[in-house]
Amino acid sequence: MPTIAVFDSGFGGLTVLRAMLPLLPGSHFLYLGDTARLPYGAKSRQTVARYAVSSAQFLLAQGADLLVVACNTASALALDELTAALPIPVLGVIQPGVQAATALLTTDHSPLTTVLILATAATVQSRAYSAAFAALGITAYEKACPLLVPLVEEGWIDHPVTAEVARIYLTEALAAAPTVTTLVLGCTHYPLLAPLFARTLAELNHPLHIVDSATATAQAAAKIPLAPATTAETTTTFYATDSIEKFQRLGSAFLGQSLPEVHLIDLGG
Amino acid sequence: MPTIAVFDSGFGGLTVLRAMLPLLPGSHFLYLGDTARLPYGAKSRQTVARYAVSSAQFLLAQGADLLVVACNTASALALDELTAALPIPVLGVIQPGVQAATALLTTDHSPLTTVLILATAATVQSRAYSAAFAALGITAYEKACPLLVPLVEEGWIDHPVTAEVARIYLTEALAAAPTVTTLVLGCTHYPLLAPLFARTLAELNHPLHIVDSATATAQAAAKIPLAPATTAETTTTFYATDSIEKFQRLGSAFLGQSLPEVHLIDLGG
Repeated sequence: MPTIAVFDSGFGGLTVLRAMLPLLPGSHFLYLGDTARLPYGAKSRQTVARYAVSSAQFLLAQGADLLVVACNTASALALDELTAALPIPVLGVIQPGVQAATALLTTDHSPLTTVLILATAATVQSRAYSAAFAALGITAYEKACPLLVPLVEEGWIDHPVTAEVARIYLTEALAAAPTVTTLVLGCTHYPLLAPLFARTLAELNHPLHIVDSATATAQAAAKIPLAPATTAETTTTFYATDSIEKFQRLGSAFLGQSLPEVHLIDLGG
Repeated sequence: MPTIAVFDSGFGGLTVLRAMLPLLPGSHFLYLGDTARLPYGAKSRQTVARYAVSSAQFLLAQGADLLVVACNTASALALDELTAALPIPVLGVIQPGVQAATALLTTDHSPLTTVLILATAATVQSRAYSAAFAALGITAYEKACPLLVPLVEEGWIDHPVTAEVARIYLTEALAAAPTVTTLVLGCTHYPLLAPLFARTLAELNHPLHIVDSATATAQAAAKIPLAPATTAETTTTFYATDSIEKFQRLGSAFLGQSLPEVHLIDLGG
């Protein structure tokens, strides 16, 4: 059976694994959260690349046939380094999200700024989304939202403070890019906030198509040719570099089911 | 002249350095922010100790005569390891804060819970403050406030969202410990929020003495015998393990003055 490795700095990438499970039955999934070194979102390209490559090499040693980089920051900053370092296919979350958003735009393509991306500071600073959209002739606006990950991790998913923070970020973004029609959730924590974003946009009288890059990435992963499944049973093995307890406690909200045993590993550093 | 090393996971410890500068003129200060591996606040004891010891060994190699651990999480989780690993005096921020709070309590000592500590999740889980107060016969209540560091780092120091988050955390803490009279700011980011805490407590009709462990630690450091200053000039050298730009941009709010050149160093990991 194919072994599919999913990697994130923490547990946000579990939203990508969650979307992959029903699309790739009979696979063995490895999930690694590099929790000792999270968050990647405020760190430099060099540091994120070093962390991502050491994480990926661990997963390769466990037999991975495909690496899904289920972290927007690592996809934005380290995809080239990962592709160069590994002898297996490497799929990030940015291209699938860009393609899903572009498919929504085909009917109303325009020279105006049409796509809004919400992401971490590091992802925005990388300009990875803007560059990918620009290559397709689409103008995108990226907005850094540093408070959303801590709010999700505090468990304030449906909370007035989170709603107010979302309102502030969306109001600033829509003032800067009033012609957008599509919103890309450029962080694997944000799918948990999708209902809140939709409600806030309705209140702001500016509804947008919402593209969840977790779902888009799972669909792209399912199209990559791998060894066929020889069993109907899907298995998962979870690894983290720190704090198993927190990983299990918070992870279930992202995976949508309780997590089995999580193995603590040491990647150094 | 004495060389005094100040260490934090990021730039929060600059509030401690800021308090030390006027008390120790003629010293050479080294400041290291381990920004590549921040935040420590959500990580395990073992991981924090490993990061802290490698940071301290770098500072020792630069000639430090005294190490001030200007990080509550590292003080709570790694002070024993640091003291064992280094041949120089090591001062954390917890004991000075506890002593300053205890001095305020002498007139109204009571068997009831009298001290409230706001801190990161890791500091609270360590029970370091509770244990230090318990050794003095004082009952303390610790409240984890995971959103406050991200809010300060977003620059939302005097912002309605931060005020609302502070109100929620303080209301929960005062409901659990209604007899407190003294508040210890158990994180080096929190001195920037001291005016907001005071205002929120007044609105909640529950004013408290506020103890800033940065000031208390600076006063304790000034009492440690070191080589006498041979010059009136105070010098500072800054090191960070990641993102010099962010360190300089955010650090000035904590130091209360603009930062000079920051040296990027690599501690591995």
